[in-house]
Amino acid sequence: MKPLHLSRAFTLIEPGPVVLVTTHDGSRPNIMTITWTMVRGFDAEFALTTGPWNHSWEALRGTRECVLAIPTADMIDTVVGIGMCSGADTDKFARFGLTPLAASHVRAPLIKECLANIECRVEEIVERLNLLILKGVAAHMDGHRADQRLIHAVGDGTFTADGERFDRSEAMRAKLPVGL
Amino acid sequence: MKPLHLSRAFTLIEPGPVVLVTTHDGSRPNIMTITWTMVRGFDAEFALTTGPWNHSWEALRGTRECVLAIPTADMIDTVVGIGMCSGADTDKFARFGLTPLAASHVRAPLIKECLANIECRVEEIVERLNLLILKGVAAHMDGHRADQRLIHAVGDGTFTADGERFDRSEAMRAKLPVGL
Repeated sequence: MKPLHLSRAFTLIEPGPVVLVTTHDGSRPNIMTITWTMVRGFDAEFALTTGPWNHSWEALRGTRECVLAIPTADMIDTVVGIGMCSGADTDKFARFGLTPLAASHVRAPLIKECLANIECRVEEIVERLNLLILKGVAAHMDGHRADQRLIHAVGDGTFTADGERFDRSEAMRAKLPVGL
Repeated sequence: MKPLHLSRAFTLIEPGPVVLVTTHDGSRPNIMTITWTMVRGFDAEFALTTGPWNHSWEALRGTRECVLAIPTADMIDTVVGIGMCSGADTDKFARFGLTPLAASHVRAPLIKECLANIECRVEEIVERLNLLILKGVAAHMDGHRADQRLIHAVGDGTFTADGERFDRSEAMRAKLPVGL
């Protein structure tokens, strides 16, 4: 897993993939599957909708740290499985054969098997809106995986993987951050 | 364009597609391209990051209404084009050959050429976070379009369309809203 410049971290969240959020509550690591995420700015600024209904909520509130790990299409059943059980009674790394790697800035672990990992601090929690404001502090990418297709949840139990690719970077140059 | 039950509206935003947001400032309609969106709940609850840098911002603040129109892969150049010019000096419906249709609950128009349209009210604006909280009030779908692939922006000028589809609805049944 190689370092990824933070200025590119938003390009992993903007396409709207299913994300695995890791936390560490001080005694053990956990993972949740989440798709209610949003980019807030080009500088690794993100938002996430979650709340007390997720076991990870307490760790997010307590530690104010997490990692956004980006799974790929070949991990679809792992992604669904993680979403269907709770860290309250399950060691999800063990159950799904995932490898926690030490992050550089937060205690929440990276997931080795994922395409990318973004270490984040929780900048703000707006409880009334179930809203978490995140700021990326480091990012890592495994550009050598065979399958690099992101997974998109429809929300009704179906998913799509990235398909046909369109390059419109020339047409958009005037509005893209410099150097991206 | 047929009515779509509001309980399914979130399934259009959750996959993270590029969205066209229409507004009507009282004198004329406008459109912006946006991908910084998030689902907030199953009941047509959405968030969107925008701000004074978008011409549509004043209409959103003033009228507290908009339509989220969902374009498909065959509309990629329209989507990019809309994002590269401003309603301040351009009639985007005319320039891109799009047809405004009257919405049922808001003055902002539907876009006939899109796969779906979600009429929304702006429930809250958190200016400090450039955050708009939206609530869908009606939705419409054109299930007969040949191309139904959503477009996902990577953020660097490239895009992907929906590709391979996975049905995991049986495995997820226990966590899906009833009747979805």
